Amino acid sequence: MPSLSGYSQDLPYSYAPGFFPAMESLLHRSECVERVLLHPKAEGTEGAEKLRALADACHVRVEMAERVLSRISGKENCYAASVFRKFEDTLHSDRPHVILHHPSDSGNVGTILRTALGFGVEDVGLIRPCVDLFDPRTVRASMGSLFSLRVHVWDSFEAYQAQYGKHQMYPFMLSASLPMEEVLEGDVPYPYALIFGNEGSGLPDSFASVGRSVRIPSSDRVDSLNLSVAAAIGIYAFSGKFRKNEKVCNKTGQ
Amino acid sequence: MPSLSGYSQDLPYSYAPGFFPAMESLLHRSECVERVLLHPKAEGTEGAEKLRALADACHVRVEMAERVLSRISGKENCYAASVFRKFEDTLHSDRPHVILHHPSDSGNVGTILRTALGFGVEDVGLIRPCVDLFDPRTVRASMGSLFSLRVHVWDSFEAYQAQYGKHQMYPFMLSASLPMEEVLEGDVPYPYALIFGNEGSGLPDSFASVGRSVRIPSSDRVDSLNLSVAAAIGIYAFSGKFRKNEKVCNKTGQ
Repeated sequence: MPSLSGYSQDLPYSYAPGFFPAMESLLHRSECVERVLLHPKAEGTEGAEKLRALADACHVRVEMAERVLSRISGKENCYAASVFRKFEDTLHSDRPHVILHHPSDSGNVGTILRTALGFGVEDVGLIRPCVDLFDPRTVRASMGSLFSLRVHVWDSFEAYQAQYGKHQMYPFMLSASLPMEEVLEGDVPYPYALIFGNEGSGLPDSFASVGRSVRIPSSDRVDSLNLSVAAAIGIYAFSGKFRKNEKVCNKTGQ
Repeated sequence: MPSLSGYSQDLPYSYAPGFFPAMESLLHRSECVERVLLHPKAEGTEGAEKLRALADACHVRVEMAERVLSRISGKENCYAASVFRKFEDTLHSDRPHVILHHPSDSGNVGTILRTALGFGVEDVGLIRPCVDLFDPRTVRASMGSLFSLRVHVWDSFEAYQAQYGKHQMYPFMLSASLPMEEVLEGDVPYPYALIFGNEGSGLPDSFASVGRSVRIPSSDRVDSLNLSVAAAIGIYAFSGKFRKNEKVCNKTGQ
């Protein structure tokens, strides 16, 4: 492995900045982790000891670093990071998906990864052009959830669709006539895919004919909702259908 | 009014950066708007014309500015802003509230303001110590929703509580035993107040005895949800109780 520099999208590796994201990378993707970096100022702290112990257990080398950590973290202080090889998975064909079409903000993508995992949606896809999934800012905003998910990036929505015909697609559109709550009153087929558009422009009109387009019942007093907020509400509400079913199954002993 | 400088919390005025937030300030709080600032590069664009027309209609002066706009916007390009006097309202005593206890991220606070307005919650309070409600980054993240809401900042939660005894309080806590969905299956008293803690530390344990503490049913595979995501899910779900009632009322002709 060459000497480390600041992050760039062309590199085959990236950084998980922060103790928690670095721990998550070792816990869930240790096979991708090349090294752990620690700032001299962190030496001896509880966080550093835990991270070092986990790295040792995973046979990952720990290095003292200062310049690289400040390069990747920008303005914020960063006392630890892991260096990991980028990865790509096949999404599960029988599990729900979250698909982000042309997302442009790395913080939003990271937050959505975290929310997806938080509600048991383990498969997330991105459609290009989009923000870099492995940008350290995305990894940080995901709080390391990236390492527990299956992720894939496609060049077009058609390429995704061709591969996952089984999924009932739900594009989220401001212009959709069907309120999400009405869709959720009926049966939701499993697996399903929730599709969210770009922060500024949403999904193109052509998505109105993809599956069943739905809108979140928000007031017309706001232009739209923040992307990570819209995705959170969609993920929470759809996954709730199956949380409820699980509860019913448990109650009846099935 | 003195000559304009970069933003500081001590100033009696702040900035709404961006065309959309500046328009919102004129549409909903024109009495607080001192001036509108336009970047020379924006001159002649549709956005600039619309903003200028609205400012004229509100008898607000439009100035060409360049240095101030770049100072308040940081790295991002900013071609328009309004300058507004800070304000404080009395929250409505019969309407739902969102209360943010010690929030530390201006982006989160702005996003939550936008979400609250998006679901018809028009009263938002902050408890100090907290991020500056009028920081231009908060205003930008709110997409100008700040100007359509009633807002107030208290020095302590007790001071808020003493003033609004009528509200059923729902503190959102990871340690709460009651899942939100169980609370929502029963009756929710109106008005209610949803209370969310700090990004890193959540609400102090003492909030367990304030009203009915609830938790969002997320998986233990994430440490917690992002604050603006947790607030979005709470606001969406609680406001849904009353959207449904409205629908029923409409259907039965009441």
